[in-house]
Amino acid sequence: MALIVQKYGGTSVANPERIRNVARRVARYKALGHQVVVVVSAMSGETNRLLALAREVMSDPDPRELDTMVSTGEQVTIALTAMALMEMGIRAKSYTGAQVRILTDDAFTKARILGIDEENIRKDLDAGFVVVVAGFQGVDEHGNITTLGRGGSDTTGVALAAALKADECQIYTDVDGVYTTDPRIVPEARRLTTITFEEMLELASQGSKVLQIRAVEFAGKYQVKLRVLSSFEEEGDGTLITFEEEENMEQPIISGIAFNRDEAKVTVLGVPDRPGIAYQILGPIADANIDVDMIIQNTGADGTTDFTFTVHKNELNKALAILRDKVQAHIGAREITGDEKIAKVAVVGVGMRSHVGIASEMFRTLAEEGINIQMISTSEIKISVVVDEKYLELAVRVLHKAFGLEQAG
Amino acid sequence: MALIVQKYGGTSVANPERIRNVARRVARYKALGHQVVVVVSAMSGETNRLLALAREVMSDPDPRELDTMVSTGEQVTIALTAMALMEMGIRAKSYTGAQVRILTDDAFTKARILGIDEENIRKDLDAGFVVVVAGFQGVDEHGNITTLGRGGSDTTGVALAAALKADECQIYTDVDGVYTTDPRIVPEARRLTTITFEEMLELASQGSKVLQIRAVEFAGKYQVKLRVLSSFEEEGDGTLITFEEEENMEQPIISGIAFNRDEAKVTVLGVPDRPGIAYQILGPIADANIDVDMIIQNTGADGTTDFTFTVHKNELNKALAILRDKVQAHIGAREITGDEKIAKVAVVGVGMRSHVGIASEMFRTLAEEGINIQMISTSEIKISVVVDEKYLELAVRVLHKAFGLEQAG
Repeated sequence: MALIVQKYGGTSVANPERIRNVARRVARYKALGHQVVVVVSAMSGETNRLLALAREVMSDPDPRELDTMVSTGEQVTIALTAMALMEMGIRAKSYTGAQVRILTDDAFTKARILGIDEENIRKDLDAGFVVVVAGFQGVDEHGNITTLGRGGSDTTGVALAAALKADECQIYTDVDGVYTTDPRIVPEARRLTTITFEEMLELASQGSKVLQIRAVEFAGKYQVKLRVLSSFEEEGDGTLITFEEEENMEQPIISGIAFNRDEAKVTVLGVPDRPGIAYQILGPIADANIDVDMIIQNTGADGTTDFTFTVHKNELNKALAILRDKVQAHIGAREITGDEKIAKVAVVGVGMRSHVGIASEMFRTLAEEGINIQMISTSEIKISVVVDEKYLELAVRVLHKAFGLEQAG
Repeated sequence: MALIVQKYGGTSVANPERIRNVARRVARYKALGHQVVVVVSAMSGETNRLLALAREVMSDPDPRELDTMVSTGEQVTIALTAMALMEMGIRAKSYTGAQVRILTDDAFTKARILGIDEENIRKDLDAGFVVVVAGFQGVDEHGNITTLGRGGSDTTGVALAAALKADECQIYTDVDGVYTTDPRIVPEARRLTTITFEEMLELASQGSKVLQIRAVEFAGKYQVKLRVLSSFEEEGDGTLITFEEEENMEQPIISGIAFNRDEAKVTVLGVPDRPGIAYQILGPIADANIDVDMIIQNTGADGTTDFTFTVHKNELNKALAILRDKVQAHIGAREITGDEKIAKVAVVGVGMRSHVGIASEMFRTLAEEGINIQMISTSEIKISVVVDEKYLELAVRVLHKAFGLEQAG
């Protein structure tokens, strides 16, 4: 007998028929003798409907009231899910975030979980109930309803699994696992049976939107065994996310190819090559709350250098304006340029720690296709390059093939 | 400065525009220096939408889960109302039933209020907030969400007014007060400026559906000054419901004509006239949870008698089946008959306590129009008759005129 936390997203509980499907799956696990905690999101579309309603009465909705309102989405789903289980003869009981007491700070609309009272849930599980918990929501110490921000239901699932010391946290979504890359770009992309947390973090932050990055971090911190599965398929083991490299396993060197089309490149040309320049450029950007991803600075030849970084495309114009108004004259830069037509492609894999030549293999592959590399950035388990947007699909395909990702690892 | 509780029903908060209207009215009271607590129902249609959703997953929805689900209706409205007030620059704060701590028993879907923690609300009022409370809902001692049953928002309003010792509890609805009878039947029907609780109880239970009867009882018990007003009119004082007859007032003898088309008549013919018969007939009816309204038994001539009572039309067939299957042979009754084509009409007024001749005036008026009276029942302040359904409108009109109700009292 195992204790399993299953989290179902909005598309998996979008209507009564799908909620019945969830109940049937839970019933199968229950029939095997497992204890099951189900975490559900709002029915898809519901959160947006409520947000729109709020904006009709208040141009900039009050965060506390917004959370009170939006949290009703999951509250409806928990009751429906519990009732669907009961209709199948399974004892079930729903809990809102406040009823569990998922204690959070009071940062409305983006609260952080501080603690979970798991006692009542454990009592219900031991009494034979399936416990259905509202994802995405909690309560602060004063009893105000809070939400964890978009995608927070994953975090609820992982946090509950950690608090209950569950054997596994299963995240059901509309894909059946984590793939070596996006199958829409590379039809040969293969589902990974396992992936490490670090790889998952790199893949998630690079735009593989299977799991919320906060949930993955949380799972890593509390060593929760996390599995991504499809809620639309009866069979399949999904992808297991492990928190340490399994030693006796033939670990593939590269796990996947991540990519991102959402970034734009900002270049500050002809910057004097002296200490403090990076801060003088990026300080005003940070003050404006603009997230910076890659940062490249090279040694210059003539006492000046070029400084390049990437931001989200939506913030490109804002970043350019700040640099031109507040920074350019001050530091004596020659020119500020922006480029939206870029894409980032990365190879990710813990195996590269112990293997040399991954970077050169990557650069050779791109060169053979005539793809120019504009920026390079590396971490322990990832090599990212920025290329012209038009080469994105080609780059992903040839890298996928070069690293043999279409073959079972 | 007064402390006022204002309760707005579902039609008054049916959409963002109407919620803004509510906010504007609250703002006017606030501008006069009053403290205001607003109690709101779910947006009209929402509760039924949620009920339908529940029935899609469970044929007989679990009461606890149903309450968790249905209570989200008011939770959305409190947040929207608080936001609409804030948008107008008024400080406002919402409370669910659980957040106030409106403590109830655990009779899900029809819970009774046991107590209210008014401390936090009072603190917020003193700090200048308008407090917006979810009607219709509470929480039991274990933290389960409960609802008070249909129309329970009125009860929430009155209970809060009692707990806070409010100066007045204003019930906003889609009519502008309590009328001498239904203006759709008698165009001359007149709005009453005051009415006693007892009269209101009789009028409400007779089908004048302005206020929930439980709320009126509650107001009487705690001596809450209750006023019914229209949420769609800017002006007007509505109808004030008083808990004692004002002595120095020229009290009208009759306050109004109530009526009810929802009942059906059951007659047990040829019953032996012996002790215990009433219980033998009504015991099985009560066991089946069927509400009985009027009960008439007359002395028989030949050792047998006829026993007649009324039930809701929806339960007529069930009542007839019980009597035919379980009672008729057992007590030796000759026949069991049912009649759906009846209507009940009543004259109501505390004045009839000190005036004779009201009953005979009523019977004379009906006789002059050729309306046959099938049943008669009287209380301290009410005389009810059952007539053929087809005479309902005529009976109401002629009685309204006979007692001079179209003239200001």
